[in-house]
Amino acid sequence: MTHATTPAPEGSAITVCEVGPRDGFQNIKTFIPTARKIDIVNAMFAAGVRHIQITSFVSPRAVPQLADAAEVIAGVDRPADAMLAALIPNLKGAERAAAAGVDAVHTVVSVSETHNLKNVNRSVDQSLSEFDAVAALMHREGIAVEGGMATAFGCPFEGIVPPENVARIAKYYHELGAASVSLGDTTGMATPATVKAAIQAIRAEVPDMEITLHFHNTRGVGLACVMTGLSEGVTHYDASIGGLGGCPFAAGATGNICTEDLVYLLQESGYETGIDLEGITAAARLTQETLGQTLPGQILKAGPRLRRYDPQLTVTAEG
Amino acid sequence: MTHATTPAPEGSAITVCEVGPRDGFQNIKTFIPTARKIDIVNAMFAAGVRHIQITSFVSPRAVPQLADAAEVIAGVDRPADAMLAALIPNLKGAERAAAAGVDAVHTVVSVSETHNLKNVNRSVDQSLSEFDAVAALMHREGIAVEGGMATAFGCPFEGIVPPENVARIAKYYHELGAASVSLGDTTGMATPATVKAAIQAIRAEVPDMEITLHFHNTRGVGLACVMTGLSEGVTHYDASIGGLGGCPFAAGATGNICTEDLVYLLQESGYETGIDLEGITAAARLTQETLGQTLPGQILKAGPRLRRYDPQLTVTAEG
Repeated sequence: MTHATTPAPEGSAITVCEVGPRDGFQNIKTFIPTARKIDIVNAMFAAGVRHIQITSFVSPRAVPQLADAAEVIAGVDRPADAMLAALIPNLKGAERAAAAGVDAVHTVVSVSETHNLKNVNRSVDQSLSEFDAVAALMHREGIAVEGGMATAFGCPFEGIVPPENVARIAKYYHELGAASVSLGDTTGMATPATVKAAIQAIRAEVPDMEITLHFHNTRGVGLACVMTGLSEGVTHYDASIGGLGGCPFAAGATGNICTEDLVYLLQESGYETGIDLEGITAAARLTQETLGQTLPGQILKAGPRLRRYDPQLTVTAEG
Repeated sequence: MTHATTPAPEGSAITVCEVGPRDGFQNIKTFIPTARKIDIVNAMFAAGVRHIQITSFVSPRAVPQLADAAEVIAGVDRPADAMLAALIPNLKGAERAAAAGVDAVHTVVSVSETHNLKNVNRSVDQSLSEFDAVAALMHREGIAVEGGMATAFGCPFEGIVPPENVARIAKYYHELGAASVSLGDTTGMATPATVKAAIQAIRAEVPDMEITLHFHNTRGVGLACVMTGLSEGVTHYDASIGGLGGCPFAAGATGNICTEDLVYLLQESGYETGIDLEGITAAARLTQETLGQTLPGQILKAGPRLRRYDPQLTVTAEG
């Protein structure tokens, strides 16, 4: 079965999900005080962010940085229309997330067998079958399930990841009643061609499944992949404040695509994100100050597009 | 008049013009020895680069870095099918470029009046009229003219640059017999919408004019703008080795889009560039070593897409 694609029309609403407090913070070695995490999330909400992966309910021994997951959720100024999601690795995490009052849980399985084995010591099918109990619990609690996939566009151990394998997992998530699937570009291997192939494979299998694209900018083409997603009609994108987040297989390379840069691209292309560029840049600045490191985001350095300079005070260069 | 657009079809040839030795080197304060410049250009040729802006014939007092323009051209291992272009600001520069044996000269005028006045102390029309003598000389010498425009997508002093002004200059260049026009994103203000508008305005005025797009990645959307260019059927793009080159109005921001990252994007999207990714990355590494600074290119840090890791030797992170 083929599926006709309509590009996301100009002027339409695009959901930008902020994943920095989860995907970014998890890689920071020095503990960020809970109150500061709350300040940063509040700055994101103030800028108009309404979809956020706010934390993970993983083992506090494995990720001490996120040991304060429940306190962060309890502490933020939660807008009535906000969707707070947390990553959970298993049923125990799902129970803790539900008790903390999340709106959604984000499960993760790697599409590639080797990566999943390495990451959670299970086969792909074992991981998926363990999500049955998670989905049942979430259904009873009225909490949405976002079906996450890691290594959706390539695996650092196996190389190419067949789109059919992405579609098979999407179908499993669909049968579990997941609200959406999220395709994670874990090690920055997504390209316009692999993005298109994965989207089309999912649509052929489960046409009504909502797709979220989660790109890393490891090889510089993260926003080019967003352009492909928009052409294919995908309206949900993850991004991380300041481009925070790392790729474990590329020292010095950037991690997730940057929220401000994505908001800038979307806004300048006529899409509605509900996020104020100045406000989200302020949240990025606060994050940068907190971490004491220069983040890869470009809007953070260059400012808004129509920033004006006084010709009397400046020196130019040709080109 | 409207002009139908056909996207550049997958598998088609895309010309990547390397501008690092001109647009990148001109901003480097410490003199790069001529022999090292020649080594870098030779590494680019060895990687398959055939279009290059190899230097500028500007005043050696204004840009001492490029005082060795003629020596560089004389010194490189010039492939028979290479197109060596040099930027020239005026007739004197054009005469020097012709004597040095270039294949093309690249003229520059800013689309915005304020920027042109600030940059070369002339009105736009004054600059254009001075190109008449340049074009006449180049025609006699059998040297191509590339009509360059700075601030084609926005001006740091004036803000928005009307696409009609871009089209007017393209028409002037067309009447001069220029082989192509090049739209320079001097201060990183190009977005998909402004790119599309500029291309369409030129095509409405001079449908048969070859267009080159010269983007900066100052606000992170350089390769997203390339995606728009490809959708609009543009097949010529400038890029700089390692992303070398700066934007005078955004301290710390990156400059030109990066050649290796562009070649990666195009290659992975099924286009033919004739450039070997490993070879051009080696040229970027040599440039980085020469300058003793980390360049913004991402492929330089992350390596090729299908680089494989041994699962026994690595640690992974979720997401």
